[in-house]
Amino acid sequence: MPHPFTITAASDSGRTRAGELRLVHGAVETPIFMPVGTLGTVKSLSPEEVAEAGAQILLGNTYHLYLRPGCEVIERFSGLHRFMNWDKPILTDSGGFQIFSLAGLTRITEEGAAFQSHLDGSKHLLTPEKSMEIQISLDSDVIMCLDQCIPYPAEEKDAREALELTTRWAERCKTTWLERTGGKNALFGIVQGGMFRDLRRRSAESLAEIGFTGYAVGGLSVGEPKELMYEVAEYTLPMLPKDRPKYIMGVGTPEDLVELTARGADMFDCVMPTRNARNGQLFTRYGALNIANARFRTDAEPADPDCDCYTCRNYSRAYLRHLYMSRELLSYRLNTLHNIHYYIHLMQRMREAVQSGRFDGFRRGFYADLKTGI
Amino acid sequence: MPHPFTITAASDSGRTRAGELRLVHGAVETPIFMPVGTLGTVKSLSPEEVAEAGAQILLGNTYHLYLRPGCEVIERFSGLHRFMNWDKPILTDSGGFQIFSLAGLTRITEEGAAFQSHLDGSKHLLTPEKSMEIQISLDSDVIMCLDQCIPYPAEEKDAREALELTTRWAERCKTTWLERTGGKNALFGIVQGGMFRDLRRRSAESLAEIGFTGYAVGGLSVGEPKELMYEVAEYTLPMLPKDRPKYIMGVGTPEDLVELTARGADMFDCVMPTRNARNGQLFTRYGALNIANARFRTDAEPADPDCDCYTCRNYSRAYLRHLYMSRELLSYRLNTLHNIHYYIHLMQRMREAVQSGRFDGFRRGFYADLKTGI
Repeated sequence: MPHPFTITAASDSGRTRAGELRLVHGAVETPIFMPVGTLGTVKSLSPEEVAEAGAQILLGNTYHLYLRPGCEVIERFSGLHRFMNWDKPILTDSGGFQIFSLAGLTRITEEGAAFQSHLDGSKHLLTPEKSMEIQISLDSDVIMCLDQCIPYPAEEKDAREALELTTRWAERCKTTWLERTGGKNALFGIVQGGMFRDLRRRSAESLAEIGFTGYAVGGLSVGEPKELMYEVAEYTLPMLPKDRPKYIMGVGTPEDLVELTARGADMFDCVMPTRNARNGQLFTRYGALNIANARFRTDAEPADPDCDCYTCRNYSRAYLRHLYMSRELLSYRLNTLHNIHYYIHLMQRMREAVQSGRFDGFRRGFYADLKTGI
Repeated sequence: MPHPFTITAASDSGRTRAGELRLVHGAVETPIFMPVGTLGTVKSLSPEEVAEAGAQILLGNTYHLYLRPGCEVIERFSGLHRFMNWDKPILTDSGGFQIFSLAGLTRITEEGAAFQSHLDGSKHLLTPEKSMEIQISLDSDVIMCLDQCIPYPAEEKDAREALELTTRWAERCKTTWLERTGGKNALFGIVQGGMFRDLRRRSAESLAEIGFTGYAVGGLSVGEPKELMYEVAEYTLPMLPKDRPKYIMGVGTPEDLVELTARGADMFDCVMPTRNARNGQLFTRYGALNIANARFRTDAEPADPDCDCYTCRNYSRAYLRHLYMSRELLSYRLNTLHNIHYYIHLMQRMREAVQSGRFDGFRRGFYADLKTGI
């Protein structure tokens, strides 16, 4: 099993940590946020802009890329990196979450997940082996095991069966991954178990026994109350092997990133900064602003006066509001660029706080700034 | 009357020429193509990208900017340049063409054009004086006189009345412009007269008598056959004062630019490169390609192997097709960037050909390349 993760600093409690994860296309610093590039593009941005905003690693969606453009197209470019002109690391999800949330007529069996494409209704079967093959053909730096996601709320019996299937699939994933790559690219297992502490423990222990490069907490941010999400993360994260990277999937708000980093998470992805940007919401240290608000109509200030991103260096709130109200394509781009920059730099501030032994102070300051308001 | 235009080279016949037009925000080389930035943005592109593609001057639409965001917003930034982060020259149209093509319930009187906004139905009156005031508040480098556009086909009587009104409006525009700016920014008159040679002559002579920095041929590309458009341009362009810049409004295809430059035009604007980019059409030296075509599905070549634009340097036809089929925002941007680059460089090639005395050879080569096909 490759062991490319080094913890370089930790808080007094040892829970919050900073580290380095060395991947095929380069090293990334943790804690880290990964912008979502669903279809081989972070919506509206060029790869250069994503890198300039500070991104070190992107997330690609296996389900989406498998359906469109299809693996045979991306294989023509020896993987997703050259196809999309991004030479830094990429993590790909397993496809499990989209089958659960997007696809039609999903049927889960021991073999895999049968589903219908949300695009054209065509029928497909995603097995653990197939998920590995797709992710390997994308040349993903971090490959995720196929897991079975369950909705919230769920019965304990359903949660247990899903985690047991996820564990058996994880074994098959690891076998295929070893055979096909010799363990070159990283492989992460995904802990399931719903909101049940005992099940989360069983899942974590079973996966640790199989052994993975890193571990993800799946099945969060599926509609449960925020307090419950924090609670599950709080007890699940310490169940994962301490010396491996810990990844909370699909989360979340800036506050979530702070709270979950505090609880020991190292990696995050979420569509929130990109999707909300396209809906006119801009994140700042002092809270989020809705650029459609009429009070910005003639406002010559940048979106966030403290921000040094391209958008804030060059454009006023009045211009951003005008672009947004006119549904101009540049609106989505300037907003997205700012939000990605905000998320990435929030993580950077947390890394630096851990490294200088003042994470608790950072966390208090983060909430004090938010209270100030914008 | 300011006289900021210098002809630096001309073809043997003297008809085709290269020159320099010195404006408040810098000099531009002619013949030139001006990308259209309707609402204070060339759709999908940053100003840096527009400049990198070689653009020296943009067009802004008075009608659109007056309605949204409104002059009082742009005045807060002392003009359109700082509002949109573009420090090179800007030409603004008068609003006349959009009132003719977009607005509802238009009523033309001696006083001006009463119309209803296409956005919210609100009622407005655009007089020659008002058009000047708006364009001055935008700090436009090249201000266009308000003209009355007529549809094609039109009766001679209607064409005559419209040109006479356009002439009277042009006088009022010049008076206001002189009073308000002292003649700092350039003011262009617009020749009307439909497809009637005598009327075009009357219009050109009347405008020359009033005296403007430059002259535009309006009322072309309004549905007439291409041969008729070339014919009208061919006889109208020599009617304009020889030592002044000559601008053909709202035209056209790459072939149109070559044919009209050959006939003595110095300036062009058109939505074709930007709009067609958003519809997946990419211009190349060897003809246009539709990126949606299935034959590009796994094509690793750039859109135009001869092109050195950002898009062609970094992306394959397969990736561009994937983005376009997925309606990704980056698609519009990469396609637009390429097409703007193509148009700007076509003009540059024509300038160089005139300067080196080989425009006829260039023109033959242009058609030979097109015949080759892509």
